[in-house]
Amino acid sequence: MASTITTVPDGTVLSPKGYRAGATYAGLRTYSPDKLDMGLLYSDSLASAAGVFTTNLVRSPSVTLSERHIAGGSARAVIVNSGCANCCVGDQGLKDAEEMAAVTAAKLGVATEEVLVCSTGLIGVELPMGLVRGGLNKLELASDAGHGFARSILTTDAMTKEIAVSFPVGDATVTLAGCAKGSGMIHPNMATMLAFITTDAQVEPGFLQSALREATDATFNMISVDGDTSTNDTVFLLANGASGAPALHPDTPEWALFTEALYRVSEHLAKAIARDGEGASKLIEVAVEGAASLGDARLAARSISSSTLVKTAVHGNDPNWGRIMMAIGKSGAVVEEATIALYINEVCIMEAGLPVPYFKDALIAEMRGSDVRIRVTLGRGDAVATAWGCNMSESYVTFNSAYTT
Amino acid sequence: MASTITTVPDGTVLSPKGYRAGATYAGLRTYSPDKLDMGLLYSDSLASAAGVFTTNLVRSPSVTLSERHIAGGSARAVIVNSGCANCCVGDQGLKDAEEMAAVTAAKLGVATEEVLVCSTGLIGVELPMGLVRGGLNKLELASDAGHGFARSILTTDAMTKEIAVSFPVGDATVTLAGCAKGSGMIHPNMATMLAFITTDAQVEPGFLQSALREATDATFNMISVDGDTSTNDTVFLLANGASGAPALHPDTPEWALFTEALYRVSEHLAKAIARDGEGASKLIEVAVEGAASLGDARLAARSISSSTLVKTAVHGNDPNWGRIMMAIGKSGAVVEEATIALYINEVCIMEAGLPVPYFKDALIAEMRGSDVRIRVTLGRGDAVATAWGCNMSESYVTFNSAYTT
Repeated sequence: MASTITTVPDGTVLSPKGYRAGATYAGLRTYSPDKLDMGLLYSDSLASAAGVFTTNLVRSPSVTLSERHIAGGSARAVIVNSGCANCCVGDQGLKDAEEMAAVTAAKLGVATEEVLVCSTGLIGVELPMGLVRGGLNKLELASDAGHGFARSILTTDAMTKEIAVSFPVGDATVTLAGCAKGSGMIHPNMATMLAFITTDAQVEPGFLQSALREATDATFNMISVDGDTSTNDTVFLLANGASGAPALHPDTPEWALFTEALYRVSEHLAKAIARDGEGASKLIEVAVEGAASLGDARLAARSISSSTLVKTAVHGNDPNWGRIMMAIGKSGAVVEEATIALYINEVCIMEAGLPVPYFKDALIAEMRGSDVRIRVTLGRGDAVATAWGCNMSESYVTFNSAYTT
Repeated sequence: MASTITTVPDGTVLSPKGYRAGATYAGLRTYSPDKLDMGLLYSDSLASAAGVFTTNLVRSPSVTLSERHIAGGSARAVIVNSGCANCCVGDQGLKDAEEMAAVTAAKLGVATEEVLVCSTGLIGVELPMGLVRGGLNKLELASDAGHGFARSILTTDAMTKEIAVSFPVGDATVTLAGCAKGSGMIHPNMATMLAFITTDAQVEPGFLQSALREATDATFNMISVDGDTSTNDTVFLLANGASGAPALHPDTPEWALFTEALYRVSEHLAKAIARDGEGASKLIEVAVEGAASLGDARLAARSISSSTLVKTAVHGNDPNWGRIMMAIGKSGAVVEEATIALYINEVCIMEAGLPVPYFKDALIAEMRGSDVRIRVTLGRGDAVATAWGCNMSESYVTFNSAYTT
């Protein structure tokens, strides 16, 4: 079945039917290399909408407002600014988020409650509303502005993150696409970044929300760059039905295709975020198998992928399995040393809790590549999970020692 | 009352009466700058003994053996090797730990169960028992070998960590002293390092254990270097009664002095470990006040002190309070943005959840010192806690990228 899902070449959030976008430079990101810092995503018709938000108790009023607006299960537009998180700014923050939504709504001729708001960037700085209003004024919707929108949401990211896939539903073609940003303050406790997923499928909000929750838990919540959880994390999924395909729900045969497509888009974006971690040059994939429960599998996978000592070892191309064992042991998952096996890029380095002979120089050479895969079998059950992270380099420290000063 | 506790000049674990120690170079630490890698601590008489151990499920058999031996509540000796953690080596690990205890016991003429064993160093390498036996054979007890013992337990530490304090009990003087090691894989989930505390007080094992547990929770468990929890963490406290002072217990008036002295020794060692973090140049002290509960205060303090983004900001002398707020929000403690105030080296940078004006250049200059104190008031209750950590530097990454390779 998965083979009927195809990747759309050069896909953007506008690959699904019935969406337009805009992007402009308002002057919020002085360090913006490509000079775009405000983006607008728009659905021509009212779309079912689902969202997942940061669990950090210190959160941006933009998140609060969006959560309130999405409660009705539908949305028309998402307005995003990069360069300023609109967080820790007191009551002014909610006022500014409300104004961003209201001005956007007036411009588009839609209800304020149909506009979602996202902000990303420095914490503790008020939105310069003069610049924001200027940017809102300049924004123009176009059907070819998908890449521009993806660029406008970036902060310290080195690259855009975009994907689109499609699959047939009867005679129609449903397309699902997404873009995301994030490269620091990335640790799964919701999604730790911004991601916008669009589809022209028709799906009831309740089904949409549960599908998004499930995909998020398996993808965005399984990545880590530095163990820190942002105040502004948000994932949105809009479904506007413009494909003309009949409504999808868990009892329709194509539901599995839809959730698989959603998983693929989410996984692609999550991995792209992990790979683009600040100062990172390698994607670390950690697959845990044979856990007693899904919860245990996820705990162990995330503990390994987010361990500073594992991340620095991978940076040094060092198959340091002692640190992997340490991370498994401290994860909270039920484990037993004697039934654990470890593989790095499928080279077995430990079996039944004991190191096995392997050609170390060959593995070190192998680890110099851009993808390092750590596979762990726990021997306690059937549950599996995958987590993603990145190597920690000297550049990460340099970068984060001089962010505001 | 605290004023009657005095610091012993140039104190070591041998400052309390009735202890001797030895240290030698067995060849386990090829990178040992001062060529000592085995240490022996000995009480002339059977001592009450208390211990706290790592919570990592992957743990060294040395820990397992010591936990078994200390269950009786008494001990005569502690044998320690550095350079090899004796962890993840299968059944051989327990055999080797048992042999270390047995050979030490035979040498000293005490029961094997009276010997505690600690190992620290690389994980996944078997103890080279030929070298260990040679080292055990060479070890000589002396009453002036305290500094040597403190050096023999180090691995990547840049300095020894030692202290002794004393206080009067009737006509007698009770002394309490300790030494510790640890600079990487340091994160509180027990103690994340080795620490040996001696006293010539007379204390029942049960009281000793609860006093040690309490002091450990407030000191060793409140430090973090890199968020990783070691497989070998151990704190031992021996009380041999050699001071001649009457037995202490919670109902004697001097019990408060004893627990205060124990706290001082533990705090001194814990702070020394945090300050000596791999690649670190600054001690970060995080004081959280006004929390709803002690648990919340500790959660918030530890979340700040162990945040990678806070640690890199401090490295860059950057009063980046947005990251501190992020760490508070994600800590799990019940907090409300609007009642939080932040201080760095007592300069208020945030009040009622909002940034306040301050002279930033002066604070940046202040942060260049070797001690950075972050104080947070949560405004939710009366509970307080202090945690300690260190800045994260490029050297931390360099060091940990090239540890085994």
